[in-house]
Amino acid sequence: MKYISEFHEGDRLRDIYLCKNVTSAMTKNGKPYLNIILQDKTGTVDAKVWDPTDPGIDDFEKLDYVEITGEVTSFNGALQVNAKRVRKATEGEYSQGDYLPVSPRDNDEMYAEVLEVVKSIQNPYYHRLMEMLFVEDKEFIAKFRQSSAAKAVHHGYIGGLMEHTLSVTHLCQYFCKAYPILKYDLLITAAMCHDIAKTKELSAFPENDYTDEGQLLGHIVMGAQMVAQLAAQIDGFPPILLQELQHCILAHHGKYEYGSPKLPALVEAIALNFADDTDAKMEIFRELLEKNPGNYGWLGFNKMLDSNVHATMGDLQ
Amino acid sequence: MKYISEFHEGDRLRDIYLCKNVTSAMTKNGKPYLNIILQDKTGTVDAKVWDPTDPGIDDFEKLDYVEITGEVTSFNGALQVNAKRVRKATEGEYSQGDYLPVSPRDNDEMYAEVLEVVKSIQNPYYHRLMEMLFVEDKEFIAKFRQSSAAKAVHHGYIGGLMEHTLSVTHLCQYFCKAYPILKYDLLITAAMCHDIAKTKELSAFPENDYTDEGQLLGHIVMGAQMVAQLAAQIDGFPPILLQELQHCILAHHGKYEYGSPKLPALVEAIALNFADDTDAKMEIFRELLEKNPGNYGWLGFNKMLDSNVHATMGDLQ
Amino acid sequence: MKYISEFHEGDRLRDIYLCKNVTSAMTKNGKPYLNIILQDKTGTVDAKVWDPTDPGIDDFEKLDYVEITGEVTSFNGALQVNAKRVRKATEGEYSQGDYLPVSPRDNDEMYAEVLEVVKSIQNPYYHRLMEMLFVEDKEFIAKFRQSSAAKAVHHGYIGGLMEHTLSVTHLCQYFCKAYPILKYDLLITAAMCHDIAKTKELSAFPENDYTDEGQLLGHIVMGAQMVAQLAAQIDGFPPILLQELQHCILAHHGKYEYGSPKLPALVEAIALNFADDTDAKMEIFRELLEKNPGNYGWLGFNKMLDSNVHATMGDLQ
Amino acid sequence: MKYISEFHEGDRLRDIYLCKNVTSAMTKNGKPYLNIILQDKTGTVDAKVWDPTDPGIDDFEKLDYVEITGEVTSFNGALQVNAKRVRKATEGEYSQGDYLPVSPRDNDEMYAEVLEVVKSIQNPYYHRLMEMLFVEDKEFIAKFRQSSAAKAVHHGYIGGLMEHTLSVTHLCQYFCKAYPILKYDLLITAAMCHDIAKTKELSAFPENDYTDEGQLLGHIVMGAQMVAQLAAQIDGFPPILLQELQHCILAHHGKYEYGSPKLPALVEAIALNFADDTDAKMEIFRELLEKNPGNYGWLGFNKMLDSNVHATMGDLQ
Amino acid sequence: MKYISEFHEGDRLRDIYLCKNVTSAMTKNGKPYLNIILQDKTGTVDAKVWDPTDPGIDDFEKLDYVEITGEVTSFNGALQVNAKRVRKATEGEYSQGDYLPVSPRDNDEMYAEVLEVVKSIQNPYYHRLMEMLFVEDKEFIAKFRQSSAAKAVHHGYIGGLMEHTLSVTHLCQYFCKAYPILKYDLLITAAMCHDIAKTKELSAFPENDYTDEGQLLGHIVMGAQMVAQLAAQIDGFPPILLQELQHCILAHHGKYEYGSPKLPALVEAIALNFADDTDAKMEIFRELLEKNPGNYGWLGFNKMLDSNVHATMGDLQ
Amino acid sequence: MKYISEFHEGDRLRDIYLCKNVTSAMTKNGKPYLNIILQDKTGTVDAKVWDPTDPGIDDFEKLDYVEITGEVTSFNGALQVNAKRVRKATEGEYSQGDYLPVSPRDNDEMYAEVLEVVKSIQNPYYHRLMEMLFVEDKEFIAKFRQSSAAKAVHHGYIGGLMEHTLSVTHLCQYFCKAYPILKYDLLITAAMCHDIAKTKELSAFPENDYTDEGQLLGHIVMGAQMVAQLAAQIDGFPPILLQELQHCILAHHGKYEYGSPKLPALVEAIALNFADDTDAKMEIFRELLEKNPGNYGWLGFNKMLDSNVHATMGDLQ
Repeated sequence: MKYISEFHEGDRLRDIYLCKNVTSAMTKNGKPYLNIILQDKTGTVDAKVWDPTDPGIDDFEKLDYVEITGEVTSFNGALQVNAKRVRKATEGEYSQGDYLPVSPRDNDEMYAEVLEVVKSIQNPYYHRLMEMLFVEDKEFIAKFRQSSAAKAVHHGYIGGLMEHTLSVTHLCQYFCKAYPILKYDLLITAAMCHDIAKTKELSAFPENDYTDEGQLLGHIVMGAQMVAQLAAQIDGFPPILLQELQHCILAHHGKYEYGSPKLPALVEAIALNFADDTDAKMEIFRELLEKNPGNYGWLGFNKMLDSNVHATMGDLQ
Repeated sequence: MKYISEFHEGDRLRDIYLCKNVTSAMTKNGKPYLNIILQDKTGTVDAKVWDPTDPGIDDFEKLDYVEITGEVTSFNGALQVNAKRVRKATEGEYSQGDYLPVSPRDNDEMYAEVLEVVKSIQNPYYHRLMEMLFVEDKEFIAKFRQSSAAKAVHHGYIGGLMEHTLSVTHLCQYFCKAYPILKYDLLITAAMCHDIAKTKELSAFPENDYTDEGQLLGHIVMGAQMVAQLAAQIDGFPPILLQELQHCILAHHGKYEYGSPKLPALVEAIALNFADDTDAKMEIFRELLEKNPGNYGWLGFNKMLDSNVHATMGDLQ
Repeated sequence: MKYISEFHEGDRLRDIYLCKNVTSAMTKNGKPYLNIILQDKTGTVDAKVWDPTDPGIDDFEKLDYVEITGEVTSFNGALQVNAKRVRKATEGEYSQGDYLPVSPRDNDEMYAEVLEVVKSIQNPYYHRLMEMLFVEDKEFIAKFRQSSAAKAVHHGYIGGLMEHTLSVTHLCQYFCKAYPILKYDLLITAAMCHDIAKTKELSAFPENDYTDEGQLLGHIVMGAQMVAQLAAQIDGFPPILLQELQHCILAHHGKYEYGSPKLPALVEAIALNFADDTDAKMEIFRELLEKNPGNYGWLGFNKMLDSNVHATMGDLQ
Repeated sequence: MKYISEFHEGDRLRDIYLCKNVTSAMTKNGKPYLNIILQDKTGTVDAKVWDPTDPGIDDFEKLDYVEITGEVTSFNGALQVNAKRVRKATEGEYSQGDYLPVSPRDNDEMYAEVLEVVKSIQNPYYHRLMEMLFVEDKEFIAKFRQSSAAKAVHHGYIGGLMEHTLSVTHLCQYFCKAYPILKYDLLITAAMCHDIAKTKELSAFPENDYTDEGQLLGHIVMGAQMVAQLAAQIDGFPPILLQELQHCILAHHGKYEYGSPKLPALVEAIALNFADDTDAKMEIFRELLEKNPGNYGWLGFNKMLDSNVHATMGDLQ
Repeated sequence: MKYISEFHEGDRLRDIYLCKNVTSAMTKNGKPYLNIILQDKTGTVDAKVWDPTDPGIDDFEKLDYVEITGEVTSFNGALQVNAKRVRKATEGEYSQGDYLPVSPRDNDEMYAEVLEVVKSIQNPYYHRLMEMLFVEDKEFIAKFRQSSAAKAVHHGYIGGLMEHTLSVTHLCQYFCKAYPILKYDLLITAAMCHDIAKTKELSAFPENDYTDEGQLLGHIVMGAQMVAQLAAQIDGFPPILLQELQHCILAHHGKYEYGSPKLPALVEAIALNFADDTDAKMEIFRELLEKNPGNYGWLGFNKMLDSNVHATMGDLQ
Repeated sequence: MKYISEFHEGDRLRDIYLCKNVTSAMTKNGKPYLNIILQDKTGTVDAKVWDPTDPGIDDFEKLDYVEITGEVTSFNGALQVNAKRVRKATEGEYSQGDYLPVSPRDNDEMYAEVLEVVKSIQNPYYHRLMEMLFVEDKEFIAKFRQSSAAKAVHHGYIGGLMEHTLSVTHLCQYFCKAYPILKYDLLITAAMCHDIAKTKELSAFPENDYTDEGQLLGHIVMGAQMVAQLAAQIDGFPPILLQELQHCILAHHGKYEYGSPKLPALVEAIALNFADDTDAKMEIFRELLEKNPGNYGWLGFNKMLDSNVHATMGDLQ
């Protein structure tokens, strides 16, 4: 397929793209037309359908995949597609990975790691809770494997939630070796569950945006509720085990101003907060460098890192 | 009965007091004795049992009601009770209200107001949720009627939670009249439920202290979970109704730094935050004036009000 | 009259509009012309006078009401009025309410409520002070009835100051019933006077902008000075009554960072701060909903409410 | 006279001291006695009158000067005066300077400098205002010459207000030379008037404590009102001149959190804030060094300077 | 020469300008051309070279001085130079002062003052350190005399660093007279050295931008290192003298959030912080007024002054 | 030896203790005596020498090791040693580890790890710098192996600096594996050097207190200077390598308010900040649990962790 980043004025197109948005408008002369934003994994481009009533123009909606037949033109210095025909594509004709950002790590491989972690939990109650969620709940697993870890900030791609969850968990496993005061079962269960409600706070790709529930309640409180609902289905789940797990989830942002309703009171909650924060910041920096290939200088102010940041030069100079 | 505030050196006692605390200790000579703190609604006093093995000394524990026979003495300038006999009292011999702080409002009268408020809710789902909690759940109702609204800050007495809840609710009812954009059913349900988890965050009187669950999770998150559990038992409860109710509870402290994981996003959440804050501050000031009767001058810095405060003089000077 | 929101290209005009601004300019060819912004209550539009020396063009200034004869054209995608004749209108030819935002409440009815409140004050000194200001000072009364409560934030329309003042006062009257520690005469006098200097801090409509005095001193300090000047004219006004009233005015923003030079020290000052803040926030939300009719979703981040805000959906979904 | 700092156990006394406080108390045996705190410029000491009804004990009150006849004893490791006779001294028998802290600078010399500054103002309105206050208002002048600049923080002694005012003014005079954009008449008038309301915010020595008016209104707002009252008595005083002067006074603390209701908007207000802050901090440090003579090391954390502070060692080591 | 601020459409040019930037671009037709920004002390203007391969177009780079032959045209309402010939100028053909902002004070005169200050230091170690830097180190002196005191904020012109340094030093000299607790040699040496590393933190004019070293280390730490390196070359330099000097440099921004790693602990460090801050703010205001000549009203919000600011009107109204 | 924690009234002593402090005082009767604080690793106790001129009393000073012959008595409820003879002990008679807190890790084993880390650095300049410091500089190595990592907060014992340094370095080594964007040589060199100036900021044990230099400059700036001095001795050390290493040291506290003059701009600086912070917090919690053995409940508010903290209960309940 021809990727959007490679379009030139004058190109003729016949390929499938994701319709990121579509709105109807009116020319100065009162003629209706369609404004479309097409997307693939390399970028987006504006497209126009000047004759929406033409029989070659299928009915289609925002977030449909559509085959566009047309020509690349230039308007006010920017490229624009003049779409002569628009056909709604059917599943199977296209591969989501060509249109949406995807984790660099293999999805099946990551899920196999998830299962390994579940197995490593010895406390029967935490182990059972993890099994119910990560091994048995097919609907959750499907969402968990597809979700991003954020709308935009970091790991904002398919598989990003699982990748971030594993990275945080592995760091917590290192912590358990380095600091024997940490209780492995609590910390690792909490690490695996800390962001599970991101599957509800954000809608699925390609939308990947905040849901109403997400905005009103937030993934921190929703995550604590999810583990409570699981524990309620396990006979004899000791309340203190649930409370300590919920506490780690509630406190994982570390500070009130980041939306945690409780400050970390358990040493495992402190460790989880560090692991989560470290992994997020490392990934933010990685994505920043990825967007500035070959750069060995100042990358400007980054809001999430709250600093002017710089690609390390080492002895290249 | 002889109240602690009226003790004088030399008084002989034979009355029932609440044993706020009891610990065993050793004299310099190696003789064991008991340190006791006795409490009634007028204050506390130290007591000693110098001969704990005496047959006149019953077994008793912290928070038991005990009949003390002994004498009031003075040590290092403070009064102290020398207890010769200690008998554990049985329920019925004493009235809790003589030993613990109690709301100035009549408990039955307040509960009747609670039932009135429940009746006023027209939305069938919110109405049913309120009924299940405030009319049918006998265990909850008993706790709700006895709880304080706080360990110490304001309404820290038996019935204080119900008194504060009603006062906030009545203020919200006024708001609904003054500001028609407010939805009565949501705001009033939220006002009634905003502090329900105080019944779990604090243990019952006479202890009235933070529970482990309360410290780890907090009444804000626990309250949101309680209404979710109720809604789960009501057929067809619309998710958005639950989410908006939970949001109001989560946001009722108004700011992250006060432990709310979400800032008020709904106008009802804003109104509830104002009502809660206003009622708390007015009560804090009332209790401050009550402790400084006849004072028309500076009351010093008050941490909760974050200001040097002053009793209004008006034209008395 | 033809409202600006209803203009279409090609319309011919002959109607009176408010001249929001007028500046002279030069074409590339060196010909002088006039840039005008016309306003009515539905919006604003650019207008041009291409021949300012034409005898049909009256002398006029910013904030004059002018009768425009001309045609609606289009330039760079926006509508523009080509004014052939401009006549300065005289008072009586137009009604201010067609050109400027006005309170939804009836002005006379509100002023009648003001008089009721004045009557309700029993302390003779506060009563007299209120009378001098709200009953006898015709110049002040005229301004008070016309002023907005703010340049833009809330109640930013004719009559807004009186509407806000009454709403705050009524809420304080409710507080007095709910919290008997509050002194009615002090609180209600302070509520009525808390924003009186808005009449000086902001210029009159149609300008409604900060005056130099307002910027240098602010309505908080100016308001405290105004009541001091009134009290100075009342025989035997007890100093403490004046100081407590001034304190409530000085402290009504509640925090240093909002420009109050004193934190609320009196319980009435605390109550006034809550009433003022509550009323402002409710009105901000009302105006926000008014601008987004039919919206049941996220309204975006609102700076004054310091939160992402949301129209309540209730069971509409 | 025998100074308190030189008392030893066994000394016999007959000298006049300031009675800083006096309260009546009861011995364990029920006998009334008097607790007194005596003060002179070198410190304070407790005194007791064990037989208050003795004819040798005059009636006297807090802040009276009293002649004490008695003996220095020791109690719990501290010195204590056993007062056998107490006679109320009359004015003329004692010199205030022996009992209260006094500025190191000569009072008359400082006042002469004040008059010099007044003369240097050329703008007739500011000049007249200064004259009315610093030359003609005998009551104000008397207070201004006696007041401290603060209860405790800095310049907390007789003459401290005048000393601080002059020091700030002289620094502003230097600023005017170094920075020609500064308007001399405005800045110097503001510098002279910035703390004039300290004469009302604090009571006179020996009390030197916050008045009710001071607590409710503060010297910043009161100072702005004082210059307004003066300007009102001067024919044709241009409003803008008054507003700019008031602005400088209102903004002289520089930040909202230090109680200024307006941030410095004029360059003179910025300069005045720096001059005031610099002089206060230099004096705080001077008093700190004075209390730690010969110290060349860490002086500990100082709250006003918000830092751990250190006496400069230079090359002494 | 013809200054950029005086260009008019149609002017023919043949003059030398600073090439602030040059980039190559491509027309829609695929023809290469050059985008140039020309600068002199009166402003900047865009220029185009439509035929870069023409033999009349020299090779040149950003920050070269170039003689432009061409014509002033107009494009989209802005002036633009159509450059027919571009010749790289040689040193001596132009005077830097015509192209770059320069201090209003004479450079030689300022340097003479620097030498005066050096002479006034009596402590032999501080005196020698100053001599090595300000009298003997030709490379440093050359940079110090040319540097700005900042990229943009204040004194952002050639000679600005020396001007600011002297102004701060003179203010410190006044402080020494007014506050005898200050040690002259330490304070004045610190004042002279506080910003010496600006010569490394910023590159030389015409670039005047942050260097990598400046961004990574900052002038505060670099300045402390510079004086340490000097002291290391002076026999017997007492460590405490070096540490106190370094402390004053490290603490001269006064607060952690302004990048000082130590809060001012010595009275000289406090004084230096005030002098630096005062001089910066006065200069910021001066430059603001200079950009708004004749303005007697609000100048808008200024980020560095953190306030809405206003030109003083005095009695002009 | 008899440890202080095991003293009982009446014990007779003849053992060596560390003299933590000694001051001379005077009894009420004017007789001189000595106040001593004795210390061993189990605690401290007051001791008195009532007859300092007795020939059995050697001359000794603060921080000497002394053999005490005497008796344990009781005064005001606390134990006190009545010392009859005091002999200054000589090195070899006592083992420092009995008197001072020591790292739980073996010192030689840790130093072997240090050497391993040095070997792992491949960049020749960083490798050489590490060698000069950790392999060749005997004086530094001796201090580095003995120093604490802090006066009190965490790792406040002999060997604590090396233990903390290694723990941070190992965590950074894990980071390098998990996040390939990190440059090993820079990060590990910075991790090893981040706290090297603690050897100068704190005096050696047994004093272990802030030095003047430490208070005036701080270990952050001093550490950056130390690596600069090392690099200056290595031929051809690339400036950028030094600047990036210095930057990591300067930024390792992560925020201005924690005394870092630069915010982390390099990804290695961010990683180092996380590693340092994580290790410190884990150790603070470990020491807290160690002081509360067997505790499974609330440990109270901890200032360094800025939270109420709790020992994890797990399923013990």
